[in-house]
Amino acid sequence: MNFKSQLENLINLINLNLNCYLEKNVEHNILKPLKYCVNAGGKRFRPILLLSTIQAFNKDMNIGVTFASAIEFIHTYSLIHDDLPAMDNDDMRRGLPTCHIKFDEATAILAGDALLNLAFEIMTQYIKNNFEYKYINAMNEIAMASGSMGMIGGQVLDIYAEKNPITANELLYIHKNKTGKIISASIVAGAIIADAPVEKIKLLKKISEKLGLAFQIKDDILDLEGNKELLGKNTLSDLKNNKTTYISLNGLEKAKNDYYTLSNEVLMGLKEIGFENYFIYKYIKNLIDREK
Amino acid sequence: MNFKSQLENLINLINLNLNCYLEKNVEHNILKPLKYCVNAGGKRFRPILLLSTIQAFNKDMNIGVTFASAIEFIHTYSLIHDDLPAMDNDDMRRGLPTCHIKFDEATAILAGDALLNLAFEIMTQYIKNNFEYKYINAMNEIAMASGSMGMIGGQVLDIYAEKNPITANELLYIHKNKTGKIISASIVAGAIIADAPVEKIKLLKKISEKLGLAFQIKDDILDLEGNKELLGKNTLSDLKNNKTTYISLNGLEKAKNDYYTLSNEVLMGLKEIGFENYFIYKYIKNLIDREK
Repeated sequence: MNFKSQLENLINLINLNLNCYLEKNVEHNILKPLKYCVNAGGKRFRPILLLSTIQAFNKDMNIGVTFASAIEFIHTYSLIHDDLPAMDNDDMRRGLPTCHIKFDEATAILAGDALLNLAFEIMTQYIKNNFEYKYINAMNEIAMASGSMGMIGGQVLDIYAEKNPITANELLYIHKNKTGKIISASIVAGAIIADAPVEKIKLLKKISEKLGLAFQIKDDILDLEGNKELLGKNTLSDLKNNKTTYISLNGLEKAKNDYYTLSNEVLMGLKEIGFENYFIYKYIKNLIDREK
Repeated sequence: MNFKSQLENLINLINLNLNCYLEKNVEHNILKPLKYCVNAGGKRFRPILLLSTIQAFNKDMNIGVTFASAIEFIHTYSLIHDDLPAMDNDDMRRGLPTCHIKFDEATAILAGDALLNLAFEIMTQYIKNNFEYKYINAMNEIAMASGSMGMIGGQVLDIYAEKNPITANELLYIHKNKTGKIISASIVAGAIIADAPVEKIKLLKKISEKLGLAFQIKDDILDLEGNKELLGKNTLSDLKNNKTTYISLNGLEKAKNDYYTLSNEVLMGLKEIGFENYFIYKYIKNLIDREK
């Protein structure tokens, strides 16, 4: 099977599971906004990383779909809350009205809460039915990455950074925590679920941290140079908002150089682990060259 | 030891653990609002129920403190988000400014998110370190009670009910889900952790559902007849907001009668289970006569 078909199959598997969980585990009075937000055209980056890591260890991906779905629910909830008027105040996301615009603010707050809770509901239920230590270990990686010592802590400083100048170290903290840790947790949780050896998990943790940072620098570059139609969101927003970014602190040239260096280290690391002939390697290679 | 000392000891144990978890597991940049909200003078109703249920089965309460703390964190997050301008828009809670008044709206949204996530972080970590099936089972009870099929689903309809007339069945749905299920989960999770026999867990589930409804009817009665200073919040808010309540639907007399009937059934049930000489029985008896 070629890369494109493999990617499509993977995305179909993820979308099927996400919607299955929504239909089965969500109260009807909040289902509509949840379906709207979950199906608003995400790349499924994090669940793909988790599932393709399992696959690269030659294990059945199906043992990880619950955790992959949980991570996507957490990602979606974080976008809904980030877009709220009191936070980033964004009206559009992926070319569609954001949750509080399409519905209302109260619904957006509760939809976010419901998705975060749902992520833990489905993981807990899965572990109840498949009582193995590795699953609680994987859930712990995800819970730590999404909490105040991860994504939420990063978002707290990011909100502050929208109105105040920050240092290079603080920007690194934001990137590492707001987006980096959950990307890293996707790969690490996949490896844990696939019974990967400890030293490979450690190596993957380091690689995935670099991937997370590279991903964020690329976001800044695309915001400056990207194509609005391709991205499905407004560009130049960082400049307009006078926001401290990797580029405003380091200049565009250094940002591009660092991106290149980090990307190469990620690909080298994946080769070292033995992933070169697996889907995940091609996927990350493609991602590095992304224009959206 | 007399009842008052027992209650004080229990509250101290809970407060100690809540603050320990906050200090140890929360990023410093969001710690201040979390400490403020968690220590804003709650009765610790839910964690007391969980721990005293364990005690009534003659087990060491300490095996349940993580779950008791998690439930209180979930309760606190729900209050922070409920108070937001887009939701109930409350400025005061327990005689103090609410989170978004004391800090700001973005902080209140993120503080709520952080507390919900923290609840699952500490339970997951506890299960990682104490890998027993009953703990994942208890966590499942809590996760289901706080999700869209429980507390959040109840809150969705409650927000709707603030601006629209609702039926008696819909009001029952709100009471059962918004407050009832997490109260029930506190007792049921305690029983599960204490290795209680299945038939007693089932009976406790029924009793705790009645307790939850009684608790809510009493809230409505106190809002109408209670003492503002004792309660630490404004009374007559339901009337002012033209809100459908148990009293507006059934009249004050029937509300009081139903409260009396339910309360008696709760106490009878607790006797039947063999809890009469334990702290929990006195605690619930006192609660039934509460004036705040």
